[in-house]
Amino acid sequence: MKLSKRIVAMQASPVRKLVPYALRAKAAGKKVYHLNIGQPDIPTPPVFMDAIHDYDTTVIKYSYSQGEPLLIDAIRDYFARDNIHFDPEDILITNGGSEAVTFATIAICDPDDEILVPEPFYTNYNGFTGEVNAKIVPITTKAEDGFHLPSKAAIEALITPRTKAILFSNPGNPTGTILTTAEMEMVAAIAKEHDLFIISDEVYRGMAFDGLAAKSMASIQGIDDRLVVLESVSKRYSACGARIGAICSHNKQLTANILKLCQARLCVATLEQIGAAALYQLPQSYIDDVRDEYQARRDIVYTALNNIDGVVVERPTGAFYMVVKLPVDDAEAFIIWMLEHFDDNGETIMLAPAEGFYATPGLGKDEARIAYVLNTTDMARAMEILKRGLIAYNQQTN
Amino acid sequence: MKLSKRIVAMQASPVRKLVPYALRAKAAGKKVYHLNIGQPDIPTPPVFMDAIHDYDTTVIKYSYSQGEPLLIDAIRDYFARDNIHFDPEDILITNGGSEAVTFATIAICDPDDEILVPEPFYTNYNGFTGEVNAKIVPITTKAEDGFHLPSKAAIEALITPRTKAILFSNPGNPTGTILTTAEMEMVAAIAKEHDLFIISDEVYRGMAFDGLAAKSMASIQGIDDRLVVLESVSKRYSACGARIGAICSHNKQLTANILKLCQARLCVATLEQIGAAALYQLPQSYIDDVRDEYQARRDIVYTALNNIDGVVVERPTGAFYMVVKLPVDDAEAFIIWMLEHFDDNGETIMLAPAEGFYATPGLGKDEARIAYVLNTTDMARAMEILKRGLIAYNQQTN
Repeated sequence: MKLSKRIVAMQASPVRKLVPYALRAKAAGKKVYHLNIGQPDIPTPPVFMDAIHDYDTTVIKYSYSQGEPLLIDAIRDYFARDNIHFDPEDILITNGGSEAVTFATIAICDPDDEILVPEPFYTNYNGFTGEVNAKIVPITTKAEDGFHLPSKAAIEALITPRTKAILFSNPGNPTGTILTTAEMEMVAAIAKEHDLFIISDEVYRGMAFDGLAAKSMASIQGIDDRLVVLESVSKRYSACGARIGAICSHNKQLTANILKLCQARLCVATLEQIGAAALYQLPQSYIDDVRDEYQARRDIVYTALNNIDGVVVERPTGAFYMVVKLPVDDAEAFIIWMLEHFDDNGETIMLAPAEGFYATPGLGKDEARIAYVLNTTDMARAMEILKRGLIAYNQQTN
Repeated sequence: MKLSKRIVAMQASPVRKLVPYALRAKAAGKKVYHLNIGQPDIPTPPVFMDAIHDYDTTVIKYSYSQGEPLLIDAIRDYFARDNIHFDPEDILITNGGSEAVTFATIAICDPDDEILVPEPFYTNYNGFTGEVNAKIVPITTKAEDGFHLPSKAAIEALITPRTKAILFSNPGNPTGTILTTAEMEMVAAIAKEHDLFIISDEVYRGMAFDGLAAKSMASIQGIDDRLVVLESVSKRYSACGARIGAICSHNKQLTANILKLCQARLCVATLEQIGAAALYQLPQSYIDDVRDEYQARRDIVYTALNNIDGVVVERPTGAFYMVVKLPVDDAEAFIIWMLEHFDDNGETIMLAPAEGFYATPGLGKDEARIAYVLNTTDMARAMEILKRGLIAYNQQTN
């Protein structure tokens, strides 16, 4: 009575596996600044709970398998702001962006098929693909290049007869990198020439700094039939616990087939869809205000990091993450040491080791992901603690 | 750029595929009694919405990947009523019973592994297993046997080196059959002798009539390490749209591994878990009252069916379904005809063709599933319409 090979092979979350150290640090009386997870501190807009409070029903019935029409229309309107037009049947509501990735993988890949993914990448892509036996083939990107894509030839060299899709998050988790239009056009060209699907995870769209546009891949011409855009309310609307995402595609055959997966699991939670519709109906100014807040945090963190000896970081332009090279051999060991052995006036910080965001063994060992999900005051204090911690760590180990 | 073989091979829901006929019947002005889906009309207990209204938070944060401790404890208390004791780590909250089946399948089966399932079975089992490349091998049961299990030898003859588990719903969807203690002991013996997991879908537990106990498989001794119990608030608490289910198992290796799947998809919707906890905290008298209501409906439907010439039905003892043999060659054709060409004073009914609940080709062609999810008055009227419809159908075709 053995468990399946696929479940045993699955890695535990590298983001969550250090949680016991944090719990012990707190039990020891330390305050821990959590920069390790993408849980924003920004209040969920009150329209979310208001819509749920106002929802009048005596029976919490199954919703439509495709999703609540009210929510589907709100997502269509959100894209229409950028002159991107989806038909109602092009949008399928999912249990967060998570289920959207899983469903897209199932629909595009059979076991042992491959998906190209720029690394470092959102670590749960490993889970969503591995649990259904698809395989991620990494396109390595580097801190010193600002985690931008390598050349077309370098990417094409990774394509095999089993390659079915290119998957990426843009703006990028964990890198905070935003693809340039030229990069997006290159991805489109590769997909067309090699007959691949493009899965564009755009859950951080809107969080683009320095005047950059956060363009959807759907704004690129000529790829309507091969593009799958993934959406979520989690980050943009600070509603991670709502678990509302969506698959958006003009490929009617694809959406008709994924609808079978939606029908099998019946529907997504009804109330959360009602709340999510209210979020998508918020004006663009809400998204812009949130972006301004994250940009201010990014500035504080980036400036502070540049004042720490030995830290290597490119200025990230989107999302609320950055990957930094630390002046240590083993970032995970340092992160654990910060929780176990360091404090500054009773306070310490928790980062996410970046190694788990790479598929290529050995990469990212001296890197960490910083999520700037706390307010500017807390972020500034956290960077001060990081600076003092690095000095103390390297004094004690040298 | 082809879709995957597994998604193309997946069947559309046989329960939902006739929906367009019902929509046209309604557009033509007919009233349709929906006996085709398991959506109860019973009000969701107000404690569900009350708990959500009272939940005070400014940020809808990620819940724990395993689930909200409040809900886990409430489920443990629910089982403890029957002297079944789960540790907190034995319970994993899922997106409905649907995700529970999928996660159990992924954890137990690699591609091409087999799961034995008594047929007719809940048709979405096909989806949950097929989308992750596991294969259902049916154990055929018959209307004339009340859909009880065949002999141990007959079941064992279906076991191959790839057989990993036996999956069943008890009380049964679509049959309404409750396994006897002897049948449960036989399943346990087979699982032990052939080293299989037992996946017991108990989402209808509590709905057991005629004084029968709705025993959990967890009450059977000696199978703790191989038993996975699946739970849901959908049916027992009439909260289908909440999408809250659970995996319950004493096998710590299994739950620790399934927790990796839970962590990848981060969490289940926070608010719905808060509401679901309040449901599980309802006293047993609530469940007993719901059971009495369904038993009254069962009595009306069963008595009425016995007064229709040519109908074959055994008295079902649980859930809120029954599978009946109709005096027609093709139940689906009859069901469509009822929507398209029949009405009695402007009213008609919609049933689910049973063929889709069988894996063996050809079985169930003259059978339909009746869900008695409407109040006693409506169910009585629906049976009157069925009787008149069958007479008219057979007069017009003979």
